[in-house]
Amino acid sequence: MSPLPPGSTIGILGGGQLGRMLALAAARLGLRAHIYAPPGDNPACDVAAARTIAAYDDAAALTDFARRVDVVTYEFENVPAQTAATLAAIRPVLPDPRALAITQDRLAEKDFVRSLGIATAPYQAVDDAGALARAVAAIGRPSILKTRRFGYDGKGQTMLREGADLGGVFRALGAAPCILEGLVRFSKEVSVVAARGRDGGFAAYDLCENEHENHILSRTLAPARVSDATGRAAIDIARRIGEALGYVGVFAVEMFVVGAGDKERLVVNEIAPRVHNSGHWTMDGAQTSQFEQHVRAVAGWPLGATGRRGARVEMVNLIGEQAAAWRDLAAEPGVALHLYGKAEIRAGRKMGHCNRVFEA
Amino acid sequence: MSPLPPGSTIGILGGGQLGRMLALAAARLGLRAHIYAPPGDNPACDVAAARTIAAYDDAAALTDFARRVDVVTYEFENVPAQTAATLAAIRPVLPDPRALAITQDRLAEKDFVRSLGIATAPYQAVDDAGALARAVAAIGRPSILKTRRFGYDGKGQTMLREGADLGGVFRALGAAPCILEGLVRFSKEVSVVAARGRDGGFAAYDLCENEHENHILSRTLAPARVSDATGRAAIDIARRIGEALGYVGVFAVEMFVVGAGDKERLVVNEIAPRVHNSGHWTMDGAQTSQFEQHVRAVAGWPLGATGRRGARVEMVNLIGEQAAAWRDLAAEPGVALHLYGKAEIRAGRKMGHCNRVFEA
Repeated sequence: MSPLPPGSTIGILGGGQLGRMLALAAARLGLRAHIYAPPGDNPACDVAAARTIAAYDDAAALTDFARRVDVVTYEFENVPAQTAATLAAIRPVLPDPRALAITQDRLAEKDFVRSLGIATAPYQAVDDAGALARAVAAIGRPSILKTRRFGYDGKGQTMLREGADLGGVFRALGAAPCILEGLVRFSKEVSVVAARGRDGGFAAYDLCENEHENHILSRTLAPARVSDATGRAAIDIARRIGEALGYVGVFAVEMFVVGAGDKERLVVNEIAPRVHNSGHWTMDGAQTSQFEQHVRAVAGWPLGATGRRGARVEMVNLIGEQAAAWRDLAAEPGVALHLYGKAEIRAGRKMGHCNRVFEA
Repeated sequence: MSPLPPGSTIGILGGGQLGRMLALAAARLGLRAHIYAPPGDNPACDVAAARTIAAYDDAAALTDFARRVDVVTYEFENVPAQTAATLAAIRPVLPDPRALAITQDRLAEKDFVRSLGIATAPYQAVDDAGALARAVAAIGRPSILKTRRFGYDGKGQTMLREGADLGGVFRALGAAPCILEGLVRFSKEVSVVAARGRDGGFAAYDLCENEHENHILSRTLAPARVSDATGRAAIDIARRIGEALGYVGVFAVEMFVVGAGDKERLVVNEIAPRVHNSGHWTMDGAQTSQFEQHVRAVAGWPLGATGRRGARVEMVNLIGEQAAAWRDLAAEPGVALHLYGKAEIRAGRKMGHCNRVFEA
């Protein structure tokens, strides 16, 4: 397929900060952005050439949207399958809805990763209280019970310790289909943010290292402080996952580092079929930002260079009241400040981030 | 004045590429952009939260616009005085309309620069054919006859050589008030892009070196290849001009370098009271882009750091059909491509630019 020429329109499902940063990146390349989002605070709309405010199951609105854009992409992985199918009947939806189907279901995702010979935590499907008891017997405790679908930022999951009331925990998660995962004793959480183009080209950013607070990403460091061999192995895992999915666009693979020294190895935790918070450092710290890279990929453009700027890069999220520090951060030399234009500060809400590039 | 908080709205007069890049920079800081522009191709509107399409003498539209924004700025220096006055009665207009009044008139601008003890080309006011003959007798030929107002990119000016029909040349410029300038034999054209904050703080980017084709900027190199003393002198000139104007925002001072070695000296050619094409290299080549810097200044934020990235930076304009090379440029590693989203390629039209940062 030939690349979409400047002036083409990228349709984006979702009106949050990721959609906003995608729209800004599209604009830089002379491409228009059309945001599709349900009513609410949609800061992406403030920087888009067009917007459709409608529910994700509004077939008429979806059809009209699809006809007015040249390609459809999305900022979040929980796009309903029917929504994707309605759009895909009219315009290319990238990444392909198959990536959504796999990554929306923790069980399908883990089965897929294992099928590539890549390590995951031990896991078992849990469809009822009896299955939970059997899974706990097999995997042990502490372990983590997670709903198969719609979990993010620690939502939809519970740690199971000795003595926990298994039936109660299962009911608290809505008695929804779940997966029990063994707890991985990791030394670091890392992620690869990478892209595949429509021509099958692959480009990864440096493996980066992530710190979480209350299950929400708080800080990313690039490159990750791991051995060179582990860094290369992580990117190879991402490449194999991207190829097996026939993926087009930016994606992230979250992994745990276990062991140390010669015994350092990687366990895949999760795949995110979209631009990812752990790639925000690339906006100031890499030759091409992850947002421009995603736009390039879905528009059929060549992928951009992913080289890092400086010796190391730090990204710090501004969550909830942390965004009140904008004035101090704006005054700090060397801080690149990004604010998302959200109407209201709320606890746990991602309001912005800042990047620092260090020369040494 | 305290800084405008995130969520505030920057009103921008003008819907072209400079307004567009200002709006994109505002968005990055969590600020909204509201574009005011006459009907036409206004690519800035594609990235703005709000737009008003109306003439610059539409008092009702101007009043409504001013009430809906927190501060007003502009992308071009030919804002009519009455427009600025109407807006300034309601909201701060920054840079101050006084900077417009001086820089809109080549005679007032040269008188102002000379009043600071800064060198300009020799010049004389020309209000009629008789004055032109006297000015030519005093300044000699070749020299350049320019209309005092509304000139840009070589428009509204004519080179006077020996034997030229002075009356005919004056009539061809509409018999408008003019200025005759002596031709400066320069070795380089350079410019300082700098900013003053609402607190009087000053920050300049590296002096850069400009190449023109057909009177339109084609290429900028930063830093300029001049002596350190000349580089410092240029920035000192910009500082004195900014202070004398009580300026707030980004501005550019275009200068000629004459002489060489110990005799290298600077002659000011023109002041642009706005972000400037010769500052586009800062988007990828400096810690803070000139667009973010301007938004910071007019919003009352602290100025950002102006340090250069890499050993040198090159900006190349994509003018008219040059923009057709977008596909090759997108594929070239290390090229940061910027396209302006203009609907149509036309000869002489600025369609985009690309930046290259070199480490050595």
